[in-house]
Amino acid sequence: MKNAQTNQNNVPITVALGDGIGPEITRATLKILEAAGARIAPEFIDIGEQVYLAGHSSGIEPSAWESLRRTRVFLKGPITTPSGSGYKSLNVTIRKTLGLYANVRPCVSYAPFVKTQHPAMDLVIIRENEEDLYAGIEHRQTDEVFQCLKLISRPGCEKIVRYAFEYARQQGRKKVTCMVKDNIMKMTDGLFYKVFQEIGAEYPDIEQERYIIDIGSARIATRPEQFDVIVTSNLYGDIISDIAAEMTGSVGLAGSANIGDHVAMFEAIHGSAPDIAGQGIANPSGILLGAVMMLVHIRQADVAEQVHNAWLATIEEGIHTGDLRGEQTLQHVSTAEFADAVVARL
Amino acid sequence: MKNAQTNQNNVPITVALGDGIGPEITRATLKILEAAGARIAPEFIDIGEQVYLAGHSSGIEPSAWESLRRTRVFLKGPITTPSGSGYKSLNVTIRKTLGLYANVRPCVSYAPFVKTQHPAMDLVIIRENEEDLYAGIEHRQTDEVFQCLKLISRPGCEKIVRYAFEYARQQGRKKVTCMVKDNIMKMTDGLFYKVFQEIGAEYPDIEQERYIIDIGSARIATRPEQFDVIVTSNLYGDIISDIAAEMTGSVGLAGSANIGDHVAMFEAIHGSAPDIAGQGIANPSGILLGAVMMLVHIRQADVAEQVHNAWLATIEEGIHTGDLRGEQTLQHVSTAEFADAVVARL
Ligand SMILES: CC(C)[C@H](C(=O)O)[C@@H](O)C(=O)O
Ligand SMILES: CC(C)[C@H](C(=O)O)[C@@H](O)C(=O)O
Repeated sequence: MKNAQTNQNNVPITVALGDGIGPEITRATLKILEAAGARIAPEFIDIGEQVYLAGHSSGIEPSAWESLRRTRVFLKGPITTPSGSGYKSLNVTIRKTLGLYANVRPCVSYAPFVKTQHPAMDLVIIRENEEDLYAGIEHRQTDEVFQCLKLISRPGCEKIVRYAFEYARQQGRKKVTCMVKDNIMKMTDGLFYKVFQEIGAEYPDIEQERYIIDIGSARIATRPEQFDVIVTSNLYGDIISDIAAEMTGSVGLAGSANIGDHVAMFEAIHGSAPDIAGQGIANPSGILLGAVMMLVHIRQADVAEQVHNAWLATIEEGIHTGDLRGEQTLQHVSTAEFADAVVARL
Repeated sequence: MKNAQTNQNNVPITVALGDGIGPEITRATLKILEAAGARIAPEFIDIGEQVYLAGHSSGIEPSAWESLRRTRVFLKGPITTPSGSGYKSLNVTIRKTLGLYANVRPCVSYAPFVKTQHPAMDLVIIRENEEDLYAGIEHRQTDEVFQCLKLISRPGCEKIVRYAFEYARQQGRKKVTCMVKDNIMKMTDGLFYKVFQEIGAEYPDIEQERYIIDIGSARIATRPEQFDVIVTSNLYGDIISDIAAEMTGSVGLAGSANIGDHVAMFEAIHGSAPDIAGQGIANPSGILLGAVMMLVHIRQADVAEQVHNAWLATIEEGIHTGDLRGEQTLQHVSTAEFADAVVARL
């Protein structure tokens, strides 16, 4: 991003470096975007641990919302929520406050360059992102009994299911699988599946199937090749996206888009990994691939492709951070060296 | 069970053949138990599809409860709950009515005799079996909004966590892993993990760790060898036990025990598979291994060992039902032929 601040054509985006490994991987990503000539003007906001500890129980300052509402595009490093019941998950707060209803998580094999037992896997999880047990409604009934409310609404189901079918059609994908537990939760998960069938009827060109989440997860874990687009509710999506990402070789490889009607947020699917923070060894690929999705979103598909290709070339040449194993050549590098290697291949 | 009905030393057990593949696999199992000289006197009850359709919305007749309360031991074939919101899951009704709080699900590799990518896996999932979203409390708020209540109680957590640690100690296992999502559900899942820590303090001889369920599931799917005993709440346990079982080679290989203070139920972890019912090709191993756990429970460990060894010998010689793949010799047989092969090796 040559002269980012002064070029009027640059798209303003909000950036949060995050906690733990967040600053390392987010800075590495920004460096690559800059070198690729991304036409962006980053505005930095502080969120996460320091903000929580300064007394904002949601982990975000009021002024940060202003930036997000103005730029409408957010590149977010992973953050740490301090433990203790007084702290609400900022990830959830942001998703709900900004109405980011669709969490899009592609999980793709890069075999043979990244070792995986499932070289043919190429699936996308479309996870509902605002409802379910994530609605944040928990109470203490008595000293001994606690409850959490799982909330499923028809508008919520319609939005996510419609999104999944439109996504499949636009990306030329062939099948959408719905995963629910409607044999037990006949009303809530039953509604999700009912809406899937209703809206699915408008997409006769796309194959449709349903799995109960237990055996569906088991199939993802053993035969991920058989899936294409998967649409599911919030908690199931959380679980199966970690499974699918890890099976491609590392949970550190997956980026995601959180899409709303007005704002979109891009991030890695992994957390802030405090155990390896500050060592400069984290894999920046997750947030980098999130940033690639962001570039497509802000209509810089040319730059997105360039960055993606340079990243692929790096991985294919066996230049990997420590979390990855390839079949062939192999050189384990630091976060910064990995970023430099991507830049050199732009 | 020679002269089962007339021998006063035989232990009365309640048996339900179930729906779908249930009758085939349950009869195959009873045949093997009989040939092994199990000292049992089966009492048959009808449950499932026919009972539902005859107007009992829970899928079980009042008289069947009487048998269960008397024998206190239940060998149960998989059953089919008709779809439609009027029918409650009988599995859940039985578990809750009889207070079967601990669902014990061993998932063990039989490599190289059964093909798996994880030859060293040997884990046991201890799943809480009465609470969580399975409490069966769902409502319709408006035409468009549905809710399901996740219920977690301190006594419920204490019972299952205590069971897991006692199980680990008795079986000589080294580690208990707790899986929760307490970064989001701070009260409910938070309580589960708090109780895990409290009770864990009484078992300093056993290694203890916690995983968030998303990355925990991902690790089961990629590195199951690292787990030993896993204790978790109902829905997570449902999902990860299907994953772990499928990874051993087939979900058809896992049996389970549902343990209460007064009654215990033994079953396969898979369902009634109506798509292959009546073809005589289903794998009876799940319910057979459930029956082996039952024999240990009724203090016939000698017979249990004999049946288990004969089953292992059958599998090791490459005699498999159609759902299994071995590395070496391989003969695909029917349900009945498989049972005969086990009997021949008793
Ligand atoms: C960190 C956590 C709140 C979050 C979630 O549960 O959604 C994460 O696991 C994810 O998948 O983005
Ligand atoms: C059939 C179904 C009600 C049951 C469950 O969800 O518990 C099954 O999946 C299991 O794991 O035993």
